[in-house]
Amino acid sequence: MIETPYLLFLGDAPDMLAAKVAQGIKDWRPEYALGQLRLDGCKADMGLPDMTLAEAKAAGIKTVVIGVANRGGVISQMWKKVLVEALEEGFDLASGLHNLLRDEADLAAVAKATGRTLHDVRIPSVKYPIANGEKRSGKRMLAVGTDCSVGKMYTALCMEKEMRERGMKASFRATGQTGILITGGGVPLDAVIADFMAGSIEYLTPDNDPDHWDLIEGQGSLFHVSYSGVTLALVHGGQPDALVICHEPTRAHMRGLPGYQLPSIEAVRDVALTLARVANPACVAVGVSVNTQHMSDPEAKAYLAEVEARVGLPTTDPFRYGAAKLVDALEGI
Amino acid sequence: MIETPYLLFLGDAPDMLAAKVAQGIKDWRPEYALGQLRLDGCKADMGLPDMTLAEAKAAGIKTVVIGVANRGGVISQMWKKVLVEALEEGFDLASGLHNLLRDEADLAAVAKATGRTLHDVRIPSVKYPIANGEKRSGKRMLAVGTDCSVGKMYTALCMEKEMRERGMKASFRATGQTGILITGGGVPLDAVIADFMAGSIEYLTPDNDPDHWDLIEGQGSLFHVSYSGVTLALVHGGQPDALVICHEPTRAHMRGLPGYQLPSIEAVRDVALTLARVANPACVAVGVSVNTQHMSDPEAKAYLAEVEARVGLPTTDPFRYGAAKLVDALEGI
Repeated sequence: MIETPYLLFLGDAPDMLAAKVAQGIKDWRPEYALGQLRLDGCKADMGLPDMTLAEAKAAGIKTVVIGVANRGGVISQMWKKVLVEALEEGFDLASGLHNLLRDEADLAAVAKATGRTLHDVRIPSVKYPIANGEKRSGKRMLAVGTDCSVGKMYTALCMEKEMRERGMKASFRATGQTGILITGGGVPLDAVIADFMAGSIEYLTPDNDPDHWDLIEGQGSLFHVSYSGVTLALVHGGQPDALVICHEPTRAHMRGLPGYQLPSIEAVRDVALTLARVANPACVAVGVSVNTQHMSDPEAKAYLAEVEARVGLPTTDPFRYGAAKLVDALEGI
Repeated sequence: MIETPYLLFLGDAPDMLAAKVAQGIKDWRPEYALGQLRLDGCKADMGLPDMTLAEAKAAGIKTVVIGVANRGGVISQMWKKVLVEALEEGFDLASGLHNLLRDEADLAAVAKATGRTLHDVRIPSVKYPIANGEKRSGKRMLAVGTDCSVGKMYTALCMEKEMRERGMKASFRATGQTGILITGGGVPLDAVIADFMAGSIEYLTPDNDPDHWDLIEGQGSLFHVSYSGVTLALVHGGQPDALVICHEPTRAHMRGLPGYQLPSIEAVRDVALTLARVANPACVAVGVSVNTQHMSDPEAKAYLAEVEARVGLPTTDPFRYGAAKLVDALEGI
């Protein structure tokens, strides 16, 4: 686990989009996001207090999180200067960059000398078990998608927020880099060795209170030929009680696969349920989550109504219109 | 690729079962298996000429293959003595042991000094791509199972043998340790990083002649919750034209999962076809391969006839009764 609270390092972000990790932390764990650190030329702003490292220390911050993508596949000297200072001041560092912090000789040396931790969340830090398939206590929801990057993480986070507001016991369970940085822990599933994928998800979602829900971040799609194996490990390792089907209706083709059309919501529901019921015969599909960001408000509402009527499941865009419908459906289980 | 031909190292194997890797090589690639090397107390015998390292050298052998499982998770000093000598005599070593050869300081040092190669086939030696899903030329058969260890490797090897005898172009494509040692190459799929699983199978089965068949060794089962993600990567990365469903009818439960019943052959066929058609809409199920080793001859024949009538697909035990029926079915595609 990454120690909180965080100082969000925005570096010299060229725009807000480059800082989407910081944005995710600020949106979903505002209690962790006490300040931001921006370098000359930074065009991103989370609306948080700008802090020096000394101010961050005084505020009780434990970890400097790299909340911005780097450019050109290198960690610049300008960044390095601040990151080395942060280690020297006693902060841990956390990063989801492809370039690992541990592979930078200077950062590794200073971390070792100061006894600080470099969290490279793209790489598993745990030796996961092989899945045993045994029934666990507590309840689990898994977001499954018609495609990659259709809003599975946001769906689970929106549901967690709504459930906590209702006083329900709920934990978002991160399976990707951004989710891990947002919550401080999780499984970087795409980097796990094949034999241990399902076991890593069992490890992530252990026995819990009977009325506790794990809200598991989905990855890939059973219909995305590059990553479908990762998705099936989530379906079987997560042994979900409930599936929410996630969809983005304006895609011309599967992400990164020009020759592949998106499957229907119904096709994903049917094959996902068939496979999920191997691990949990009681699994049901409870709702549909649509990412309507590329639609106007009237278009989005008409589309949601059409899907709800056609598929016969509560349908919403939880980020735009709230997750109440989806959580209502969970409450019935 | 591992250089052939091989000297099969049987060590101090306590029985024939411990030497099943050597048995597999001798059964399926007899042209590679020129001799065996046995230590004092060895109870296994492949019926091959016993050779010293000098005799093996004179016979043109290139690689000493560890054809036997080790005991207690260690590579004994008795083994080490021979393996070090083999490196010094100019042989490469190949092993599918969990203990890696490269992790033994003495073997690693001698290999480096002599310029020989240590092939640890449990570990990928290639940086595989992410799958792109593009249609490849040539044809592919994938063996899919109701469970793990039901005979998927033997099914593909039996079919390869029958096809080559008929003059068809066919290549067994190994995806596990034993298959890799048998054929000298392949992908150790269970050790591949999640994101690259399907890509490794695309890499393993590239464009080929239009009338060439890759016979892809299956792994796990879509219904085995520990390993199903590995199986789906084969279904999508292999983009098979033909599926053969493999089954072992005497199992009381899924291998290693006491709480899980085996699925029906029909259930595996249906979900595997649904998923396979994402990558290749023309994919068909062509036959059923039953491992009848625990049945008498009349029992086996009655069971095969019953399955063939019920499922409506050519059904045989290819190891016991030949793969002709399955290959006949492929010839129609």
